Amino acid sequence: MSTDPLVVFTPSGKRGHFPKGTPVLTAARQLGVDLDSVCGGRGICSKCQITPSYGEFSKHGVTVQDDALSEWNSVEQRYDDKRGLKPGRRLGCQATIQGDVVIDVPAESQVHKQVVRKAASARVIEMAPATKLYFVEVQEPDMHEPTGDLERLITALTEQWDLDAPTADLRVLSKLQIALRKGNWQVTVALHQDHNSAVPKIIDVWSGLHEAGIYGLAIDLGSTTVAAHLTDLATGEVVASSGIMNPQIRFGEDLMSRVSYAMMNKGGDQEMTRAVRDAINALTTEIAQEAEIDANLIVETVFVCNPVMHHLLLGIDPVELGQAPFALATSKSVSLTARDLDLDAMNGSAQIYVLPCIAGHVGADAAAVALSEEPGKSKDLVLVVDVGTNAEILLGNTERVLACSSPTGPAFEGAQISSGQRAAPGAIERIEINPETKEPRFRVIGSDLWSDDEGFAEATATTGITGICGSGIIEAVAELRLAGLMDDSGLIGSHEATGTPRCVPEGRTHAYVVYDGSAEGGPRITVTQGDIRAIQLAKSALYAGARLLMDEMNVDKVDRVVLAGAFGAHISSKHAMVLGMIPDVPLDKVQSAGNAAGTGARIALCNIDARREIEKTVGEITKVETAIEPKFQDHFVAANAIPHKTDPFPELNKIVTLPHVSFNTGGGDGGGEGGRRRRRRG
Amino acid sequence: MSTDPLVVFTPSGKRGHFPKGTPVLTAARQLGVDLDSVCGGRGICSKCQITPSYGEFSKHGVTVQDDALSEWNSVEQRYDDKRGLKPGRRLGCQATIQGDVVIDVPAESQVHKQVVRKAASARVIEMAPATKLYFVEVQEPDMHEPTGDLERLITALTEQWDLDAPTADLRVLSKLQIALRKGNWQVTVALHQDHNSAVPKIIDVWSGLHEAGIYGLAIDLGSTTVAAHLTDLATGEVVASSGIMNPQIRFGEDLMSRVSYAMMNKGGDQEMTRAVRDAINALTTEIAQEAEIDANLIVETVFVCNPVMHHLLLGIDPVELGQAPFALATSKSVSLTARDLDLDAMNGSAQIYVLPCIAGHVGADAAAVALSEEPGKSKDLVLVVDVGTNAEILLGNTERVLACSSPTGPAFEGAQISSGQRAAPGAIERIEINPETKEPRFRVIGSDLWSDDEGFAEATATTGITGICGSGIIEAVAELRLAGLMDDSGLIGSHEATGTPRCVPEGRTHAYVVYDGSAEGGPRITVTQGDIRAIQLAKSALYAGARLLMDEMNVDKVDRVVLAGAFGAHISSKHAMVLGMIPDVPLDKVQSAGNAAGTGARIALCNIDARREIEKTVGEITKVETAIEPKFQDHFVAANAIPHKTDPFPELNKIVTLPHVSFNTGGGDGGGEGGRRRRRRG
Repeated sequence: MSTDPLVVFTPSGKRGHFPKGTPVLTAARQLGVDLDSVCGGRGICSKCQITPSYGEFSKHGVTVQDDALSEWNSVEQRYDDKRGLKPGRRLGCQATIQGDVVIDVPAESQVHKQVVRKAASARVIEMAPATKLYFVEVQEPDMHEPTGDLERLITALTEQWDLDAPTADLRVLSKLQIALRKGNWQVTVALHQDHNSAVPKIIDVWSGLHEAGIYGLAIDLGSTTVAAHLTDLATGEVVASSGIMNPQIRFGEDLMSRVSYAMMNKGGDQEMTRAVRDAINALTTEIAQEAEIDANLIVETVFVCNPVMHHLLLGIDPVELGQAPFALATSKSVSLTARDLDLDAMNGSAQIYVLPCIAGHVGADAAAVALSEEPGKSKDLVLVVDVGTNAEILLGNTERVLACSSPTGPAFEGAQISSGQRAAPGAIERIEINPETKEPRFRVIGSDLWSDDEGFAEATATTGITGICGSGIIEAVAELRLAGLMDDSGLIGSHEATGTPRCVPEGRTHAYVVYDGSAEGGPRITVTQGDIRAIQLAKSALYAGARLLMDEMNVDKVDRVVLAGAFGAHISSKHAMVLGMIPDVPLDKVQSAGNAAGTGARIALCNIDARREIEKTVGEITKVETAIEPKFQDHFVAANAIPHKTDPFPELNKIVTLPHVSFNTGGGDGGGEGGRRRRRRG
Repeated sequence: MSTDPLVVFTPSGKRGHFPKGTPVLTAARQLGVDLDSVCGGRGICSKCQITPSYGEFSKHGVTVQDDALSEWNSVEQRYDDKRGLKPGRRLGCQATIQGDVVIDVPAESQVHKQVVRKAASARVIEMAPATKLYFVEVQEPDMHEPTGDLERLITALTEQWDLDAPTADLRVLSKLQIALRKGNWQVTVALHQDHNSAVPKIIDVWSGLHEAGIYGLAIDLGSTTVAAHLTDLATGEVVASSGIMNPQIRFGEDLMSRVSYAMMNKGGDQEMTRAVRDAINALTTEIAQEAEIDANLIVETVFVCNPVMHHLLLGIDPVELGQAPFALATSKSVSLTARDLDLDAMNGSAQIYVLPCIAGHVGADAAAVALSEEPGKSKDLVLVVDVGTNAEILLGNTERVLACSSPTGPAFEGAQISSGQRAAPGAIERIEINPETKEPRFRVIGSDLWSDDEGFAEATATTGITGICGSGIIEAVAELRLAGLMDDSGLIGSHEATGTPRCVPEGRTHAYVVYDGSAEGGPRITVTQGDIRAIQLAKSALYAGARLLMDEMNVDKVDRVVLAGAFGAHISSKHAMVLGMIPDVPLDKVQSAGNAAGTGARIALCNIDARREIEKTVGEITKVETAIEPKFQDHFVAANAIPHKTDPFPELNKIVTLPHVSFNTGGGDGGGEGGRRRRRRG
């Protein structure tokens, strides 16, 4: 038995004997304990903080003496004086082993920190980012050994960090000499290890110990909105979330009209490419300002998007995606630098990763949903619906996963709706219509009160009542049906037929007045027949896609439904089922996943293994093409009606509000709906 | 013994037995015979032409029957009808083996064509370019197998050409879909295999069989001039050569004044970077126009340059190169794409290769000279002097190679000389001064006549007599010394002292009038005392550098001297030695190597193994730093004088004109002096 002291690390439980005088960091490394260090054991980065258990006898079978570690030293004292160490903490690189000891590695000292998502599923993101910081001391130049500064930096990295020799981005070369001299031959580099390449790459360099951190953007590039999460690449914390409208909307509201624009206008694709890249640049600048960081610290960006946006982002004419056989230019993941895409608001050497596409109509956004929701790991048969301008639909279990995309259009997002608006303060988001009186009551974003609650007028005085957002219009249509104001085919009854003056003529059809503020100079908010038709088309497309996958899977029902999408978290499941958006399942089997595509982007941003995983998974998903499948048309037509049924959940005669679930890292809301996150536009 | 037919290939002599019906191309590939093919045996590229030897009995021990190959087929007939095949030629992919046969592979059908340089040494460049063309047939897309077009192209390349799976440049993605469809799923790709990377890269794609070829630029980026050779990457032929002035001259004539400019002016380095990149873009456009090719066909560019130009090209502030220890930002070779350097006149995905630097003062140009002149393979002790604004000096043999750089300034190139000019028609390039009469006679570029020959006036009527170029001023100074018109210290004597009215007062000193055309409104061309001083400084620097290397090597003399540089080929060796530019050696031991740095660039452009070689060689060269070596100053001062000696080569009382040696590939002059090649500027 070894006479060297025994060291036990918690929480890993890893243990081993080490000679007296071995630094704790060295012992941790030799045992493969997950203990961070950026400065490589020089006592300046403080990432290797540990909590030794002194005097806790017989813990983990180890009898610990008070002198189990070396005495507090001057490096620790200096650090404590300058920045403060929590009581009981030591620096792992300074404290050396003198006797048997139990050493706890606190969560923030672990490299592979776990980021908890506040989601229905308790899934966590383990930090394993592609880009990490390394502090090195570089040999000074010597006229008699005329190697370049870069070559000496590479030698330092390989020797001090046991890394494979990296290459360097050209931009690094122009900064390197100043950084080395300013830092007195000590620099911190950001090193990117692409999971498909053997050679790491230096993408930035700072003099001395770089303490301002590095960041990544997870961008969900939708047809209508572009949403970004700015993430600390060391901790995984989302430090800011922001979104803007996709400026391509001026070329066409839905994807096919943008493809048409590219076909009909020479250079139209390049025009749209420039528009979206400009928008991403603007968003990058804004989100960095919001988080009060230098945008040059953004060294990685992950994109998820549908195939048309994918092509337009990359500068590829999307024309082939508008016609069978819907051939993608490339289906695999794409790795680039920001410079390649003219994304010059972030670090020019920032590494861009675009998730793989599943097929010509099922894009990297669907892949991101698959990464986030993992239908292929579900024992139940789960239907994942990511509602947006296009709905991405996944159906599967551990046996098999199917995917399709369905063109729902922008109605669910409040667009093409007469009183529709984006989810923002003042927008009606919840509606109830009393089946007896046919009178509505509603709630607007920005207040928790219902319109018939006391104090509602005061509470909404600043925002006003401005329109109806996506979740509001879904509830409105479902409530019209439940209140008997609308028939199976979706026709709103007349004042005479319904007995309420809220049903008013509107051209040849009728509309239902939800709110009339015109006397006070405010809007008159109605649900028109046109609105109903738009919602019917959207919900039919969604339902038909789901049915098509169920046919393919040869099932009549699913075990559970996950509603995802930028506003998926805010859809009332009950109303979605009344409307026939999704197949009927028990209400407790409907989960909200928030912005699952955005979550998938964040996972890929924070964990390089997830990139490998999704690249493999995508190849295993069976893709169903809605556009050429005759059964899709049949299902679409059949789904158009809103069958007269009594409230399917009479026991829930109050609106069931699902928790507004989104993932979070302990900071701000990282993945909520557009309206809940701070609006950045305008 | 095999009963299968025996096939012998010439000139390789490779032989083997193959079953009847084997295509000749297949047999060649199996034997490793160097037989080209771009279309992969589809009978459309004609690169695999062969000449079978019918009826030549007992050649190479093979008795050949007339029916040794299959009959001329319809594919060959179609090709012959459309483009014509030379008599006796067959297509190797169509003709199949039917009996014993001897098959000759003509030079133009070999992949590794040899490019003969018309140089003193019979060295040839073997073609092994990094970028080659491959023709493939790609699987059409299938909705039920939703792979991207790129993925199917990669599959085709790996299956049809047995290549490792390549990546693709982003630009390729935007062209690929159109190219595939236009070419009916047949495309030609340009594939680049970097010698330091395991993964090949698709850098361009064309529909169908691309017959316009691909090209490379070998660029010698000098302080004063930028010279480029446009080279066919399939044949190695130089199809155009062109040069322009380096526009950085306006920031400083020599390197150190440019480094000072960068130090003294904020953003000055970036200003110079833009200037030189703009110049390269202009040169690229011009050279492509001259060769009548699409500049997008330029898919590779190799740069050689001194360290300051190297840094300014790459966008690195050269300030560190202006002070000890002269640390390079990077000393290794640099591989990039054209886009990275804003070189947008050529193909945006063109691959850039910058040769490695030897040290802070000894750059990639010196490395290129080493690659071209191979001092390390010489049994003799050879001194290689590349004369430019900076002289790169190499001294070595198989034992050891030393290198240094010496700041000669631009005087040797006709700059800073009162009547100096670039080597161009009208410039005086040769001078003799009669030691008796003290009268000069001269020759100008553009005419072979001496000024005292009959018809000289007529022959030079169009060009006029405009100034003195670099080789002219060297001869003028040496002849002044030989004619006794100038003393050891370089002082020109007065009219009285010399007895010739051509020695005229010029301020406090004297000048020698070479030509006076002022009566006819032409120039008065003199050699002034200031000119002598400039040449003295330049030659002292050059000589001192050579001496320093000889000291380091511990030798007093060298076996041979190679004069290189843009105008190295045009310096009279005799006058160079009279002047004391180079150590004395027998006159037949002085060779001209033309633009050796440019040749090195061409070698690296045409042969990927040469890149590996020079990267290794550079590490083995011992570098001597002139700037800090006290002995350099001693040698410099000592070399200032022009000792009175009689003509060292009295038997050569006529000027010995060395052959204007330059390498060539059978086309135009590929590497001559600036004045001889067509001037592109203005």
